[in-house]
This record gives sequence, structure tokens and C-alpha cells, in this order.
Amino acid sequence: MAIIGCVGSGLVGRSWAIVFARAGHQVRLWDSRPSADAVASLAATLEGLAREGAIPSLGDVASRISFADSLKQAVSGADYVQESISERVDAKRELLRDLDAILPPHTIVGSSTSSIPASAFMAGLACSARCLIVHPVNPPHLIPLVELCPSPETAPETVEQTSALMTALGQRPIMVAREVEGFILNRLQWALLSEAMHLVGEGYCTPEDVDAVVTHGLARRWAHLGPLAVGHLNAATGLEGYFDGLGEAITRVRDTLRTDYVPSEQTIARAHAALEARMPVSNLSDHAATRDRRILALNRLLQDFEQQG
Amino acid sequence: MAIIGCVGSGLVGRSWAIVFARAGHQVRLWDSRPSADAVASLAATLEGLAREGAIPSLGDVASRISFADSLKQAVSGADYVQESISERVDAKRELLRDLDAILPPHTIVGSSTSSIPASAFMAGLACSARCLIVHPVNPPHLIPLVELCPSPETAPETVEQTSALMTALGQRPIMVAREVEGFILNRLQWALLSEAMHLVGEGYCTPEDVDAVVTHGLARRWAHLGPLAVGHLNAATGLEGYFDGLGEAITRVRDTLRTDYVPSEQTIARAHAALEARMPVSNLSDHAATRDRRILALNRLLQDFEQQG
Repeated sequence: MAIIGCVGSGLVGRSWAIVFARAGHQVRLWDSRPSADAVASLAATLEGLAREGAIPSLGDVASRISFADSLKQAVSGADYVQESISERVDAKRELLRDLDAILPPHTIVGSSTSSIPASAFMAGLACSARCLIVHPVNPPHLIPLVELCPSPETAPETVEQTSALMTALGQRPIMVAREVEGFILNRLQWALLSEAMHLVGEGYCTPEDVDAVVTHGLARRWAHLGPLAVGHLNAATGLEGYFDGLGEAITRVRDTLRTDYVPSEQTIARAHAALEARMPVSNLSDHAATRDRRILALNRLLQDFEQQG
Repeated sequence: MAIIGCVGSGLVGRSWAIVFARAGHQVRLWDSRPSADAVASLAATLEGLAREGAIPSLGDVASRISFADSLKQAVSGADYVQESISERVDAKRELLRDLDAILPPHTIVGSSTSSIPASAFMAGLACSARCLIVHPVNPPHLIPLVELCPSPETAPETVEQTSALMTALGQRPIMVAREVEGFILNRLQWALLSEAMHLVGEGYCTPEDVDAVVTHGLARRWAHLGPLAVGHLNAATGLEGYFDGLGEAITRVRDTLRTDYVPSEQTIARAHAALEARMPVSNLSDHAATRDRRILALNRLLQDFEQQG
């Protein structure tokens, strides 16, 4: 059992608190702008998870999360701190400087940033060797992937210890060897999204259809096998055979992809309107709740497969 | 009940035969090079589906598929012909010319090609107005998505009738409004795969980790929501808010994507070796069978959700 400081009590910070608490750790959650909403939202999420049978005991998990009165109270004696404050480099720099002054000498600090390189706010501190980016997928209590991105000053032991912690929590850590815009997940996501917007923007297909290509096509395989593994199983001689056999076709497509495509405001508005017809913004939280229930059921299915081997 | 001619009895042709036969249609399967293997493989696939409870009656479905002795026998009186021969434009052109001479005047011809534009082999025939590409995802009896790509000569009624047929079969047709390399699915797939190979090739992450980003991250959402819908639910004001809020971060990533990246032979070999350690080529058919069982279970889960609304 470890003591975990969670800084920032927005959607991501609260979800992280659940990840740590359900694994048995003591969580101290703090926000520079405390909100009654955060307390209520956390309780509602925990109740929803208990209803779905996704946490063993609502009372036990809830009792392990306390709201701290100050940053110092949240992180004193903490073994690990997860930072999930707003996505502004100046705010993150200031927080890291504050932490640097009060952290115990063994504490690791992970940042949830999705777009700021570690070297932009984790460098030149006494604790720099123990800082790294630990980027979750929203929401981390439902989606296991976590990207570990060290800065040039991060110690290898920090990466190893954080990787072991994440694995013990039931997350799936991956390593980003050196700094790159968008890390791995958002690069893959935006490569696909940018080409999708190109196809919609240039009138090759509708927004509904481009979404269906993923939900009713690509994701049926990707839920089980990554993009390289899909290729490996699609040729009698594995991935090398896949690239050999499809080489020409892949080249012709690759040369015409437009992942640099900047969608016009009209294109974004048209896609937004198509989504709005199915999932009105006035009701987004209901749709997000439906999404979360479905992800939970999918997680169970995939866990069963893993256990069957 | 319709009569369906399936031309080509490889993996894709056999899977199409199952799609039509399980929906109650009479299928006549023909191949220019008949093989005993095809008969045995079809029987084995049907038995596997019956074991999983994925077809109502093995005997009924099997009895609706017969192997024809000639192209003429396969397509005489057919309401619809699905072409799944080898992916060579000259072979497809020759087949279409042969079909043109013998088809009844109402028969629609769909081609399973994944990479040849319709205008390259479906133009200038008496039956051109009734020809279009009907591109499945492998294997179509497990993955519902189908891309309908007309040639400039395809009649609108042909597209409408084929769309209605595919929907009645339980497939999910999407429309590709005009010719484009790789249609929609392979463009999205290769946009993601090319960036994945870039990240592996330049040493940002391992082949295992890039696959995990999809299986343990992106696909957990994409199984339920397409890429545009994911964005819509990720901002309080929907897709427009998503692009507004992340605009700068998306731009920085978009400008550095390398979906034009040509992986070296060494990079492909390294990724192949990593996959080989988990899924040896000597055992690929077992891994493909596991994949197929898992897709079937995922389909059931997603169908349950759709029925719940």
C-alpha cells in the first residue's frame, strides 16, 4: 500500500484517483480551485462502477480517497504524485517548482499532459531525475494504456519503477524512447482522424460512413490485434509477406494520403452537425456514460480472453 | 430468396458464400481452378461457426452452397454475382468480359477488389451500369463493413439495390462517392499503419508497444465510436469544441506526421521478428482461428448493445 498524491481534480485527476484507490492505495486529491462538483462527480462515478460490479466495495474504495486542504498535505509522505492540472505549460512549470521544494527525496512525479514535452517543464529541478510524463487515455479507470515519456533528465530507475507501478495497477504502460509531438497514441489517432477529415472534406464519403468504417470494420480486428499484428495474420508468411504482397497498393495509397489536411470550418461544422443528430451536445454526458458502460463490458470480454490465453 | 453466383473460391470467395447462404440465399460457387482444399476449408469454417452457435443450422446453410462446374452454370439465372478472383486487373477484365456475354439483363456484379479502381475493368461493357466494387473486410462473414464504389458508368439504382441487399444480409454498406486509391478503409488503415512504422523505424517505440497503443488504448473507444464521434464526446461542446480546444496541439502533430514513411527492410524484419515471437508463422492458422473466435464474441457484444439502443 502506497500513498499517492493526485494534483488536479478534473475528469482526468478524479479518474486517476479511482485507479490508485481501487488497487488499495491511499489517495490524497488536491486542486488549487477546490470544487463541490468534483466531490459529487467522484462519488457518482464510484457509484456507477459499483453498480456495474467494476469495483469490489464502494465503501472501501471511497474511503481510500481523501480531499487534501493544501498541496503540501496532498504530497507529504507520498510515494508517487500524479499531476493532472490544466494543460498550460506555465501552470505546470509553477507546480513542478512548488513540488520540488516540498517533495520527499524518493517521490516520483508523473504528469498527465497529452501535448507538452517533458523537457519544457520538468528540467532543471532538484527532482528532475524523478519526473516523467505518465499520459493516460481518457478515462484511465476504464482504458488501461499509459504512455511513459521521460525527459532527457529522467533517471532510468524512475521509468522502471513507474512502469512496475502502472502494471501493478492493471494499466498497460508503453515506453516512448525520446520526445516526439503527441507521443504515440495521439500521433496514431490524429493520423487516422486527419485522413478521415480529408475524405469527408473532399466529399469522398459522409461523416457517418467514415465513423462506420472504424466501428464496423477496422476496430473489429484492432480490439484484438494491433495494426502490425493484423498485417502479420493477413499474409501466409506474416508481416514481411504482407508488405511484399501489398507493397504496390500500399505505396499508391501512401503517396496520396493527406494527413496534413487542414479541415475547413465548414467541414468541421458539417461533421459536427451529423454527430449532433445522433448525439446532441445537450445530452453528451448520457452518451459518455453509455460509452463508459460499453468500454467496461469490452474490457471484461478482453480480460476473459487474456485469462484463457 | 435469391440466386447468388460467387466467382473465386479463395478465402474471400468462400466467406462471401457463407454470408449469402446464412441469410437464406442459394449460392453457386465457381473457381477457374477448382480445388479440393476449398471444399474442405468451407466445410471446416461452417463447422466452426456451428460450434460457436453463429449459424442456425449447419446442414441448412451448407446445403444452400453448391460448387458449379462452369462460370455459366454459376451465374445463369443469378440475381447477383460477387467476384473474388485474384487481384490482377487483366484477370478481372477478362472475367467481366466473359460475364458480359452470359449474364441475364438484371444481374448485378460486385467485385471484391481492394485496390483496383472500378473504371479500370468495369467500363465499356453492356453490363457496366450494373457493375460496382463491393469491397469486404476480411473475412466478410465476421466483419460487417462493405465499401460500395461505383465506376462512372454504374447506375444509381445498382448502388441502391446493392446497398439494400448488403443491409438485408446483415452487412454495413458505406458509399464511396468517387474513385480514390484504397477506398476509405485501407486509407484509414494505412494512414495509421504508416505512422506506426515511422515510430518503430525511427526508434520512438517498439513494435509490441505500438500494437498495444491500439489494442489497449484507441480500440477500446473505436469499437464503440468512430474517430469523429470520439472527438465529439471528448469536449463539452462536441466536435467543434474538440477542434477548437486541441487546435494547436493537433496542428503540431499533423505537421510532423510521417504517413509517407517508407519502412526499410530492416524495420519490417524487426517488426516481423517481434510478431513471430508471439505468433509464429508456422502456427498462423491457429492464431487466425483465435482472432476469428474473438471477433465473433465482440460482434455479439456490440449487437447486444445495438439492440438495447
